This record gives sequence, C-alpha cells and structure tokens, in this order.
Amino acid sequence: MNKKIIYLDNASTTKIYPEVLNSYNEVCDKFFGNCSSIHGLGVKSSALLAKSREQILKSLKLNDYDLVFTSGATEANNLALKGYCKQYKNRGKHIIVSRIEHPSILETAKQLEAMEGFEVTYLPVNSFGVIDLNDLKNAIRKDTILVSIMAVNNEVGSINDIHEISKIVRKYPKIAFHCDAVQSLGKIDIDYNDCDLITITSHKIHGPLGIGALVMKKRISLTAEICGGGQEDGLRSGTSNLPGAVAFAKAVRIAQEKIVERFEQVSKVAIPLHKYVMESKDLYEINSFGHLNPYIINFSLKNKKASVVVEALSNQNIIVSSISACHSKGEKASYVVMEMGKDEWISHNTLRISLSEENTAEEMLTFINALIKIVGEIRS
Amino acid sequence: MNKKIIYLDNASTTKIYPEVLNSYNEVCDKFFGNCSSIHGLGVKSSALLAKSREQILKSLKLNDYDLVFTSGATEANNLALKGYCKQYKNRGKHIIVSRIEHPSILETAKQLEAMEGFEVTYLPVNSFGVIDLNDLKNAIRKDTILVSIMAVNNEVGSINDIHEISKIVRKYPKIAFHCDAVQSLGKIDIDYNDCDLITITSHKIHGPLGIGALVMKKRISLTAEICGGGQEDGLRSGTSNLPGAVAFAKAVRIAQEKIVERFEQVSKVAIPLHKYVMESKDLYEINSFGHLNPYIINFSLKNKKASVVVEALSNQNIIVSSISACHSKGEKASYVVMEMGKDEWISHNTLRISLSEENTAEEMLTFINALIKIVGEIRS
Repeated sequence: MNKKIIYLDNASTTKIYPEVLNSYNEVCDKFFGNCSSIHGLGVKSSALLAKSREQILKSLKLNDYDLVFTSGATEANNLALKGYCKQYKNRGKHIIVSRIEHPSILETAKQLEAMEGFEVTYLPVNSFGVIDLNDLKNAIRKDTILVSIMAVNNEVGSINDIHEISKIVRKYPKIAFHCDAVQSLGKIDIDYNDCDLITITSHKIHGPLGIGALVMKKRISLTAEICGGGQEDGLRSGTSNLPGAVAFAKAVRIAQEKIVERFEQVSKVAIPLHKYVMESKDLYEINSFGHLNPYIINFSLKNKKASVVVEALSNQNIIVSSISACHSKGEKASYVVMEMGKDEWISHNTLRISLSEENTAEEMLTFINALIKIVGEIRS
Repeated sequence: MNKKIIYLDNASTTKIYPEVLNSYNEVCDKFFGNCSSIHGLGVKSSALLAKSREQILKSLKLNDYDLVFTSGATEANNLALKGYCKQYKNRGKHIIVSRIEHPSILETAKQLEAMEGFEVTYLPVNSFGVIDLNDLKNAIRKDTILVSIMAVNNEVGSINDIHEISKIVRKYPKIAFHCDAVQSLGKIDIDYNDCDLITITSHKIHGPLGIGALVMKKRISLTAEICGGGQEDGLRSGTSNLPGAVAFAKAVRIAQEKIVERFEQVSKVAIPLHKYVMESKDLYEINSFGHLNPYIINFSLKNKKASVVVEALSNQNIIVSSISACHSKGEKASYVVMEMGKDEWISHNTLRISLSEENTAEEMLTFINALIKIVGEIRS
C-alpha cells in the first residue's frame, strides 16, 4: 500500500502551490486593509487588487476586457447568464447552451426558464463530446441574446472549437458569447479574445479555493447578482478577497506561462494509461480523447462497478473520480457520457483520471498496476 | 512618527489571527480533496466541513438551525432577502428593513422592489440609531413576510433590541426575522435564537476573507441565488471553500468564547477616547454610544474635514475610517448619521474608530495625542 497519496483528481480541485499559498499568507500579513478604505492601508490594498486584475488579463492576453472577481466559477457562471440576461432581456429572451455544460450553467439556464421567462435551446453533442456548428447556426433565432459553450468539458475533456463558434456568433451583433473556461485555463491554449464573457477559477490551477472571476469585454453591462457596497464596479459587492485575488493571479500567471511545455509533459504521463485502456477493450470503453487533451482521461468499466473501483483505489491512497464531484452525491450516471450516445451501464460506470503537471510517470505506473489488480480481483 | 501601524479600522476588516491562518494553511496541505468527492480524501474533507458547520452553530448556541456557507456577509444578506422573498412570495410581497441597514441589505431591498415587485418599508431610527418598536408594529401588514433588522450598526455601533423585535415578529407566524449580525458576532452578546435567519462573516473577527454564512432555522427554505452542483443542500452551489470554513469556525469559536471578557477589555481601551471626545464639545460631536458598544467610537469634526484628518493620521500609520468602507468610494456623507437626525456637515465629517481586542491602551493614547495635534494644526 502506498503511504503517499497519488492524487489523480485534479479536474475536481487541485492542491494549492506552496509559493501561491505563501503569497496568500504574505498579503494577509501586510495588506490587511479593506480595499475600499481611503486610508493608506486601504489604498495599498486597492492598488494590489488592481494589479492582480491586470495580471490575470495580461496572462490571458486580453486587452479590451474587464475582470470581476467572484467567489469561484459557479458564481461567475451564474453572473454571466443571469446578469447578462436580466440586463439585456429587452433585446430578446432566448439563449443557447450545450447539453454537457457544467451544472452551474445548466441549473442557471433552468432558473432563467422558470423564473425569468427565458427560452433555452440545449445543443446536443456528438460522440466526441463537442457541439455541431450547424446545430448552433440553426438554433440561433431573432430573439437570441446569449450563447454559452464551455471550452473544455470537465468530465471527458472534449474541446469545443471556440474560434469557429465565435465566428458564427459574431455575425449577430446582438448575441454575446460566454465561455466557461475553467478546464482550459492553464491547460489548453485558447484565444479568449474570441469570447465576450469568460469564466475562470483559481482552485483548478493550484490557486486557493473561494476565488474566481468573470472576465468580460469592455462596454458589456450586467445586472448585479450580489449587490451592496458597490465593489467590482458595482457588478459584485462584498469586501474584496485580496489575499485570494493575489494568489489567484499568481496561479494564473504560472499556469498560462508554461501552458505549452506542461501540455507536453502531461501528455507523456498520460500516454501509458491511454494505451493500456485502448488495448483492453474487453474491460474498458474510452470516453476521452487522448492526445487532444491529456489532462482528463475518462473511461468506463464494462463489467465492474466504478464506485467499487474508486473506493478500492482510494484505500490504496490513489485518488480518482467516478463522475464529476459537482454531482457525485446526486445523480449516479454521467449525463455527459450519456449525451455522447453511450448506454446506461457505460454512463454509470465512468472513471475520471485528471492530471496536473505535478503527476509523475511513476505515479501513473503505480496507478495502472493498482487498477489492473483491482479490476482483476473484484467481482463483476 | 510611528513605524508600527496602529490599526483602528476593525469594523471594516480585521487582520487574520496567526493561529487561524495556521489552520487555513494546514487544511490546504492535508485536506485538499473536493468535499463533494466520494473518494477517501473527499470524505475526509466533507466530514471536516460538517464539523466546521456544527462548531459555528455550537459557538452561537443555536440548536435548531442549519448553516449555509457563503462568500461573505454581502452574499449572505443577498441570499437571506432574495432567497427568502422569491421562495415565499406567494404569501405576500411586503418586507420591512431599517433605514440604516448595511448597503447589502438596502440595495438588495431596492432590487426586490425594482425586479420582483416587492414593497419595502424602510423604518426610521431615532437619535440613538435604533428603530422604534412601535414603528415596527405599525409597519407590519397582512402581506409582510420578512423583517430584516441589524443587531449592531456598522458605522455608529448602535444596538437594536433583537429580543423585543423578535417578540413582535413572532406574533405573526408568516413573518420571518432576519438579523445581520456581522458587527455583533464575537462582540455583543446576543441570543440569536430569537432570529430565523442570521448573517455572519469571518473577516470582521480575525478570520479569512471570502467566507461567511447565512444561519437559518430548520424547515426554512430558500430559493438558491447561486445554483449548480447542489452543494450546501442545494442552497449555495460551488466547490466548498474548506480551508476558509475551518478557519472561520475557529475564529468564531475564539471570538464567542471570550465575548464577555473582551467586551470589558475593549471598554477600558475605549474610555479615554470617549471621554476626550465628550469633553471637547467645541471640536467634536459624538455619534456612538460609549459603554453600550465600546467597539465602535464614531464622532464628527465640527469644523475640520474628516477626510483630511483620516489622511493625516494615515501618514502617521494610524488607520481610522471616515465613513464605512462599504461606500467610502461612493457617497460622501454618512446616511446612518444623517438618519439619526444630524445635519449635513456632521454627516459628512464623521470619524469611525473601531477596535478589536488586539488594540492596547497605549495605542489609544498615541492616537488621541495624534488627533489633538492634527486637529489643532490643520485649517478649518
């Protein structure tokens, strides 16, 4: 049994980098003034908050954008959809999302239907977990005001073509394009200048929990979801989480700077697992896309229960997911895998191995050997 | 000039305790699994989250309550008002708040008027900064569903009689009583069992930024404001901020345990300032309430500009507020002091000295001497 934890659930959350946590601690110690205060400490805090904001936009190579700090991606997704739709509902009350968006998009879309009288088109995905551009074209109506499509799916790692989607949406000046970039940030090199609204979060890239952001093209307005003291240009009130923002900015910089070399490195770690799964077709069905996105390897057990395997691995200090943590206590099947056309059993028995650049080839080997042993031993 | 900072802006935000920051760091290091995950790390994290929740409720001596973690008090106040009103709007569309609530209550009330068709009664306060119980009685209508009154005002430290308010509200089973307890938590000993909904936050009691909670009586239901993966019993989605929650729980425990002895200690530190201000009636007008709440001392400069004094003090590393940080960049007058019946000048030129138990008698003396010097030197 391994004493050291082998953590392969990085798409769920990551361990904060020591240097990022150091920044957090430093800010707690030195810049503890309220960012909205007019005294010296407040002014310094406020300047540091502005710097963090600029640093994130710079790391993402975005020039004509503003950034609203939120408590994370879920809040940012809620703000993007509800804040935009409430603000521009006079232009139309139809939006388009994909069927495999994160629950924070899907549930928010449902709220817009139930409580704000919006109509939502849920675009299907193909067997590769991406939307069909023709479906998008056909779904656009005269009253469409927002399209929200994720860059990278959190369960299977499929990658939508953000540039081609934006080319379609840009033909309609009335429609904004929101992209949930949580799983692409620092991992898949995407030009976010193609988007009007972008959701990012800190804890998926070794930053602290409880901080994220909605990045938005300048001149876009939103109705505030959380109102009060008027922080974040009135778009998101509440005392600024400065240590969180500074640490988040550092995590973004580290992740984005090394995005290409990390992709290569993680690819090398991922290959043996991908190869093993592909070669064991009697045992597994692959649901992810290999070299396109090495960060997430998702496969289903054809004749074993995934929950049993997750537990057996966990007992050996190897941490993987069955389905996304965001609904692992609720539904038991992966709606993402189901939408890709897989059957009930396959959708109920997915394993998600999600990597960070901290995972080593040795860890992967240990995991594969443990998996082989467990799958060989447990009852079908 | 003092090298060391004398921080007298604790009602705005506090410096995190080293031992609380240690807990934060420890959780980051050891319990970094997603609280919603079914693997071992997730289960441990989830148990620790539940423990933090229980610990806070226990510290507040609340038995029949649930607790929803939020990103802070502003979000909790938004959730209390909007979440409750949306959930129970079929029972009536009238609510009552006081005119000196925090902006996160007042702005949310305005949103309910503008966007949800609610009617809001804004109760006046007397010269002591508290509501008149008869005003409350008279304001209650057949369609009233919520009363939201803060325990302690954040600018002047006035204390509403929560128990008497609750006695009035409890006569109407249809009406819930929400209390913004941000400035009473750990400071003024209040029995929160008198309330149905209670807002608290961490960074005002030497806990980390970015975490707070809405405490609610069991069986109360809310419409979620931030929806998604269904965390916090579906009332507040988003990956749980476990390090924040654990550190918050520790800060609450420390603050509530020592609430009585700290009150005494802070009283002793506050007395000399209170005395000095009261004895210098040509220079100052007092807006706060002395021994009733020693944590906040608010007074106005009768013939000097408060912003100039704040800056001059800040240059000597003494940190005080003019008006609350929550609107110090917006409006320039204190609406709180104005509602207490003071004139324009007095409302525009308030100083707020807010203490924590970390402030010493020596610091207070240094501050008073600096204030005397500055007020004597600057132009009227």
